[in-house]
Amino acid sequence: MSDTKNKIKIGIFGGSGYGGSELLRILLFHPKAEIVFVTGNEHAGRPVSDVHRNLHSLTDLSFVAIPDDLDDLMELGQIDVAFFGLPHGQALELVPKLPVGTKAIDLSGDFRINDSEIFEAYYKRPHAGELQSKFVYGLTEINRDAISNADYIANPGCFATATALALSPLIASGIVTGKIIVDAKTGSSGSGAKPAANTHHPQRTNSFYAYKPFTHQHVPEIEQHLRSLGNLDEPLIFMTHSLPVSRGIFATCYVEFESETSSADLLEVFTSFYRDAFFVRILEGSPDINWVKNTNFCDIAVHASGRNAVVFSAIDNLVKGAAGQAVQNMNLMFGLDEKTGLIFAGSNP
Amino acid sequence: MSDTKNKIKIGIFGGSGYGGSELLRILLFHPKAEIVFVTGNEHAGRPVSDVHRNLHSLTDLSFVAIPDDLDDLMELGQIDVAFFGLPHGQALELVPKLPVGTKAIDLSGDFRINDSEIFEAYYKRPHAGELQSKFVYGLTEINRDAISNADYIANPGCFATATALALSPLIASGIVTGKIIVDAKTGSSGSGAKPAANTHHPQRTNSFYAYKPFTHQHVPEIEQHLRSLGNLDEPLIFMTHSLPVSRGIFATCYVEFESETSSADLLEVFTSFYRDAFFVRILEGSPDINWVKNTNFCDIAVHASGRNAVVFSAIDNLVKGAAGQAVQNMNLMFGLDEKTGLIFAGSNP
Amino acid sequence: MSDTKNKIKIGIFGGSGYGGSELLRILLFHPKAEIVFVTGNEHAGRPVSDVHRNLHSLTDLSFVAIPDDLDDLMELGQIDVAFFGLPHGQALELVPKLPVGTKAIDLSGDFRINDSEIFEAYYKRPHAGELQSKFVYGLTEINRDAISNADYIANPGCFATATALALSPLIASGIVTGKIIVDAKTGSSGSGAKPAANTHHPQRTNSFYAYKPFTHQHVPEIEQHLRSLGNLDEPLIFMTHSLPVSRGIFATCYVEFESETSSADLLEVFTSFYRDAFFVRILEGSPDINWVKNTNFCDIAVHASGRNAVVFSAIDNLVKGAAGQAVQNMNLMFGLDEKTGLIFAGSNP
Amino acid sequence: MSDTKNKIKIGIFGGSGYGGSELLRILLFHPKAEIVFVTGNEHAGRPVSDVHRNLHSLTDLSFVAIPDDLDDLMELGQIDVAFFGLPHGQALELVPKLPVGTKAIDLSGDFRINDSEIFEAYYKRPHAGELQSKFVYGLTEINRDAISNADYIANPGCFATATALALSPLIASGIVTGKIIVDAKTGSSGSGAKPAANTHHPQRTNSFYAYKPFTHQHVPEIEQHLRSLGNLDEPLIFMTHSLPVSRGIFATCYVEFESETSSADLLEVFTSFYRDAFFVRILEGSPDINWVKNTNFCDIAVHASGRNAVVFSAIDNLVKGAAGQAVQNMNLMFGLDEKTGLIFAGSNP
Repeated sequence: MSDTKNKIKIGIFGGSGYGGSELLRILLFHPKAEIVFVTGNEHAGRPVSDVHRNLHSLTDLSFVAIPDDLDDLMELGQIDVAFFGLPHGQALELVPKLPVGTKAIDLSGDFRINDSEIFEAYYKRPHAGELQSKFVYGLTEINRDAISNADYIANPGCFATATALALSPLIASGIVTGKIIVDAKTGSSGSGAKPAANTHHPQRTNSFYAYKPFTHQHVPEIEQHLRSLGNLDEPLIFMTHSLPVSRGIFATCYVEFESETSSADLLEVFTSFYRDAFFVRILEGSPDINWVKNTNFCDIAVHASGRNAVVFSAIDNLVKGAAGQAVQNMNLMFGLDEKTGLIFAGSNP
Repeated sequence: MSDTKNKIKIGIFGGSGYGGSELLRILLFHPKAEIVFVTGNEHAGRPVSDVHRNLHSLTDLSFVAIPDDLDDLMELGQIDVAFFGLPHGQALELVPKLPVGTKAIDLSGDFRINDSEIFEAYYKRPHAGELQSKFVYGLTEINRDAISNADYIANPGCFATATALALSPLIASGIVTGKIIVDAKTGSSGSGAKPAANTHHPQRTNSFYAYKPFTHQHVPEIEQHLRSLGNLDEPLIFMTHSLPVSRGIFATCYVEFESETSSADLLEVFTSFYRDAFFVRILEGSPDINWVKNTNFCDIAVHASGRNAVVFSAIDNLVKGAAGQAVQNMNLMFGLDEKTGLIFAGSNP
Repeated sequence: MSDTKNKIKIGIFGGSGYGGSELLRILLFHPKAEIVFVTGNEHAGRPVSDVHRNLHSLTDLSFVAIPDDLDDLMELGQIDVAFFGLPHGQALELVPKLPVGTKAIDLSGDFRINDSEIFEAYYKRPHAGELQSKFVYGLTEINRDAISNADYIANPGCFATATALALSPLIASGIVTGKIIVDAKTGSSGSGAKPAANTHHPQRTNSFYAYKPFTHQHVPEIEQHLRSLGNLDEPLIFMTHSLPVSRGIFATCYVEFESETSSADLLEVFTSFYRDAFFVRILEGSPDINWVKNTNFCDIAVHASGRNAVVFSAIDNLVKGAAGQAVQNMNLMFGLDEKTGLIFAGSNP
Repeated sequence: MSDTKNKIKIGIFGGSGYGGSELLRILLFHPKAEIVFVTGNEHAGRPVSDVHRNLHSLTDLSFVAIPDDLDDLMELGQIDVAFFGLPHGQALELVPKLPVGTKAIDLSGDFRINDSEIFEAYYKRPHAGELQSKFVYGLTEINRDAISNADYIANPGCFATATALALSPLIASGIVTGKIIVDAKTGSSGSGAKPAANTHHPQRTNSFYAYKPFTHQHVPEIEQHLRSLGNLDEPLIFMTHSLPVSRGIFATCYVEFESETSSADLLEVFTSFYRDAFFVRILEGSPDINWVKNTNFCDIAVHASGRNAVVFSAIDNLVKGAAGQAVQNMNLMFGLDEKTGLIFAGSNP
């Protein structure tokens, strides 16, 4: 890690949550990356490895506070790209204050929705307005070219990543008709690092339940993406559930076709669509969140029955669903192989 | 427990698996029940509490082997009712050998399907034939009268119980149109007491995956039941998944109506349909398998959005989904209050 | 549950935490108990079953606030006994305000330590003073006679229960010499119902760690109890650890004898000591928290090797370690069989 | 991974279990390693990524059977080092058949015990005899020099690694007196990849229990190692327990000193002893298996109280306790930095 000359200089805004924690875990060992600073207002002055004890002895970084004038931060060193792992609403205010020429990758929902009316209905906050047009939706496998040329990336939500990767090949192929239903399940780390009733261990450890029926904020993001690829006959039916595991999203996607199809034909649609996508693995049977945990892979399987089909999709919500895909996007933005620093083999067990 | 005169005399065939284990846990403390014998071929001669160590000091019963001539068993004492917790296919052979007048409650799938062709397609075994007509499908809340008058009960499958209770009010009301999709999830005890790859702790503990897409053997059982209540426009789409918990089934059921409806109207349909059903609780929000574990409750919530709706249903797969419902049926068959011996408050946490 | 004439009238102070939740779960179905009121300041006015959703449809009780003048509470009905499931320090203030003749069972640490100096060193609060002398330490199996005649009970701590039941037969027999080391492990429900960093599911679910080395507040309580039975050569070494389960305490107790002994001899010491103790089960091999969860049992096994021995002890921290033992004590105080309302068979799985 | 000229050529004997799975996960991405073959008799001919689905798309290797004549294997390519991840007893037979000059690292217990009598008492098999003298005990941080010059390595057991690293500084310093007690806990992956009753998910997921009291086969290995560093007054008391997690070992080690000491002094002993040991991290408070999972770190904390002290030690049983330490040893044997290919940051959560 001695040669820093040719490395991408990085600032992380919001490094104390789980998204930030994963950005640190990945970027500290990325061969072409150098973290210049990481903010964490609550922990300002504390060593990063005191807060993220998994990083003990692996970094000398300490958290800094976000100053009123971002230029004060840049005195720590010029950065090429800023990652934002802040609560929804904060990147919207900070991105315009970045030094000219600094790229940005936002892990929040602030810049994912183009339509201001829809955004405000779901997020209950003002829309980014003109600034929005500069953002590219960072679903890497689908938007690779636009991402490569982008300065600003809106990194997809975790549920949206699992769902959009499962449905994109079918929407793009134009064979889906009627209603699409997605039954999605997430691990507890998706609720963030702050203790709360729904992530209280004594009750979560043996639980499974649904939440936000018909109203999850990832719906418009998924619909907007799918509509950019093809036709959606009806609004997406999207249902979110909570799993008693720390990591993982599993999406079960129900689709219907105009005419009967076979599992073999569908398999061909998917393998062809993702033939250049290292991080999307098309499997037989079913994916399992166990096989993708701690990795940047999205595992997909597809099965047909008459005019119906189901697509199963599994990711690690914090890696492919957040920090990993963000780094994958950074790699493209800086002309690197998208796999750089991201090949972690999942573990068995 | 001294007065045995007025107690129902019970024989349990197959008491070493999880279904049998739960029958024992419930029936040993049922105020009107007395277990005469419990079979367990592998464990013949061993005290029940050696195998089910949770029952240590709570019973003096020992397992007996199933003899060739069932009359040899009856020498242990006459029984009023036989419970069958055996692997699929065995009750079919034993029921005809029961002494005349002995009632039977089978927890396997042997007697759940009336249509022999469908049965043989899913179970790959010969159908019960004429004997089938003597069996009543033991979904207690729906078939209470028939059960009260029955001698033989086919106890519903665990997935089937959760799904059928969720959908029955809507099918009976005739308001459902088009396709029904059920996304079902089960805990690991549903796979039984025998160690296997899919229940190996190191891999199951952080996993979630789908299995048997479009082909689960509970599909015909659910369809047969629903068609007895009303119309099904299309074959049920039913998808099963594995949860990393021991107990619990959660079914997410997607339905569509001819015209828009409201959550309030649906709530009324359910509360009215289940107004006399102590063990079905209609909730706001979502049920949680954590709240029903170790109980005989089925918790249900329902939400509408335009012409779409979702019904959530949660049960303990081994209680309401197996042994608990079996005892509930026994209570009815012998003229007892259906709640007798079955009021366990679930635990929090 | 209609005949309330001969029932014990109960007030629960502090029914919103896990101790209170378990008291409700047990007492609602106790054949000789009737809950007159249950307090929960944060939830005053809300139905109990809204907070403890496992009790949905099982009780019509609502939480009430604790008034300044306890007599206002008694207008809800006279009570025979008050249970206290409040944070440490509150029972100390409330007990003296109870109507004359009302018995009290406190689940906190307020009245467990007789020595004021030791109490204040561990609890950092003033000692109960004279009031302390009216309290009997409610370790049921050991203090049965005193409990039967007591008005006020200090219910033992969860760790203390598991440890004291494991060590009492050996201390009473006088064969232990030298240092005793107890390595204790607890589930997350021991930390209470309030979300906190150490019970945040994403991190707790795959964790195991130690806490409070050499300084846990249950140490003086255990020492005081053991010294009432025999000699302790050295201060107890007691180490607490956190398990990634909801329920259960497991204590591994290392002892040494003056001369070699055999496992068989030790087994005889334990079975003899606990021959009248229904809720203490002496096992071969090892107990397992899985076998005692949701029950009032304490499972114990003992093994010798030369002059060394180990005693394993397992309980459910919320039942035998809190609410269950409290009700067991109530049964004795009111002349009932100690098992009344407390026979729950643990579940397998 | 194109330049294979300067890479260490590796054969893995026994790649289908968890030890082998972890060797593959690590060595496939080791910058100086190339796997020539991997055996798996049960899976011969099957792609490795079919069995270890976490490796899907990450390797083209297939399992081969172990032939009667090992030379047949070498036709797949000459190897520099053979790893053995086979059941106990098999490496003993295969090592002598390796081509001359091939180094060997055995993860089983076959070569860990020098004393044939002790070995045979614990392992119930004949001892390695003369061959034993060629093996170095691969506890990397302690035996670094001998390992660097060794041809044959007996890789330590998982419990032994956690315990020996916790106790070595104290034994070497000569300050320990009297009896040492180690209370050790392990995750379920320590029982291997084959389903069994003690790793059956429905029962393991909420369980904690002890096993093999006073008789675990890692005892002689730990004693032999500690005696090589200093004095042991008495036989080690070692107790093993099962945790309901997949990965992780936590050892709580109780020691006594001749005179009072302070936590600060002990901390100095440990930091000084491990000042050059990157993979041993000395912490305040307690280690947590959550912080070391999937890593090669051993986290240690130490606390004193009077003449007593406790050392806490946490590792991932499959990495530092098996495959990771094996690769660390390989690095030393081939003159590489011991960290090569082994820096994985653990994850939070």
